[in-house]
Amino acid sequence: MRTLKLTLQYDGTAYVGWQRQESGTSIQSLLEDALARIEGAAVSVQGSGRTDAGVHALGQTASVVLGSAIELPVLSRALNAVLPPDVRVLGIEEVESGFHARFSAVGKVYEYRILNAPIVSPFLHRYVWHVPQPLEIDVMREASQALVGAHDFAAFQGSGSIVATTDRVIRAIEWQDVITTGGYDLPLVMRIEGDGFLRHMVRNIVGTMVEVGAGRWPAQRVADALASRDRAQAGPTAPARGLFLVRVLY
Amino acid sequence: MRTLKLTLQYDGTAYVGWQRQESGTSIQSLLEDALARIEGAAVSVQGSGRTDAGVHALGQTASVVLGSAIELPVLSRALNAVLPPDVRVLGIEEVESGFHARFSAVGKVYEYRILNAPIVSPFLHRYVWHVPQPLEIDVMREASQALVGAHDFAAFQGSGSIVATTDRVIRAIEWQDVITTGGYDLPLVMRIEGDGFLRHMVRNIVGTMVEVGAGRWPAQRVADALASRDRAQAGPTAPARGLFLVRVLY
Repeated sequence: MRTLKLTLQYDGTAYVGWQRQESGTSIQSLLEDALARIEGAAVSVQGSGRTDAGVHALGQTASVVLGSAIELPVLSRALNAVLPPDVRVLGIEEVESGFHARFSAVGKVYEYRILNAPIVSPFLHRYVWHVPQPLEIDVMREASQALVGAHDFAAFQGSGSIVATTDRVIRAIEWQDVITTGGYDLPLVMRIEGDGFLRHMVRNIVGTMVEVGAGRWPAQRVADALASRDRAQAGPTAPARGLFLVRVLY
Repeated sequence: MRTLKLTLQYDGTAYVGWQRQESGTSIQSLLEDALARIEGAAVSVQGSGRTDAGVHALGQTASVVLGSAIELPVLSRALNAVLPPDVRVLGIEEVESGFHARFSAVGKVYEYRILNAPIVSPFLHRYVWHVPQPLEIDVMREASQALVGAHDFAAFQGSGSIVATTDRVIRAIEWQDVITTGGYDLPLVMRIEGDGFLRHMVRNIVGTMVEVGAGRWPAQRVADALASRDRAQAGPTAPARGLFLVRVLY
């Protein structure tokens, strides 16, 4: 038996999210079904974490234990031949026995993309949150630094999840300015790295930052919301379509 | 009555093309239906030309004569409110009476995007032709110059069209190299400008260039195919999904 680490990209628009559900198509179920055909038996694939319905991945990772002796480049091509074009296997490597995509992870990088322009291009609308009103990016950049470091992020956790602790470490939050290139408005990108993220945490941070950037909230309110540990004190949840899981760190 | 010039962007994936058809949704029918609701009467919209099913537009133009006194920024917002998100009105301006999006045009610019990499990103697959085998871009760039200038392009015209002449002027063909940016392979882009294009002409040129770039054709065969005026002598038709109408010149 070999333990394999898969690196995956997907456009989450058409899916119920990473995790297998009773109804609807998930990324996990697509992969497990494709691998089961190769293995000739049921296969369990572990993701680095759930991505919600509509959330995208530039570099999700998954682990699987496989008996098949298939060569890894052949396995990669075989999977891409049966997976839909909005889910791609970028690479597969053999890793040490005991590796687990979720429990072995030591951090994650996400990006959130906001289109801060009057009109959303047809080529971007699945991948951005459209915020037409002007945003003060420098103010958002500065306000977001209140969240960097080790904190209890209970105020930024979506409801309905059970976790041992809501303490997390955000290592960095960076904002890349909107680039306007003659008709193509590229999105404003927030990149965030941490040791792990609570349910909806990135989307709740972005929703809060947009309140600040639009001038509806003073920047100080971010630190107050964090200290409150009360979800009602933080801003709204930004839509799934702007969120990308960029990389999982091991 | 005012004559208006509309600038449009669309993702052609879901449509039967620009032109209204008996079945399926066209961009023209979406616009005419939306404008008829504002005008309170049937409206005829003229495009700069047909784009085929699956072809995209970064800057298609259309003209329409309208009785409504609606302010143009309001009209633009009203149209975008009812059009699907994969079709956007970028701008509307009043032009002189007699302006016609097709007959007033003096040139067009198209781009064709080829993904010359082993795997197509889920975020690109609707917008590129996937050519996994290595392409000699410098050879394609040089070979394509045989087509620049005033020529009879009968060999590059798709079947089933009736035109007064197959003479056209290609003003420029430029190739932008593949840019590899750590996991994101951006497409190889061919940009072509001419006074007008025959049916499938850009796609037939690209299909021919890929024969040359893949080493299956010597570069000289491009000039021979052009001189033959015989469709059977030129290369295959590249897929619609890689083609973008960039701009119409007036």
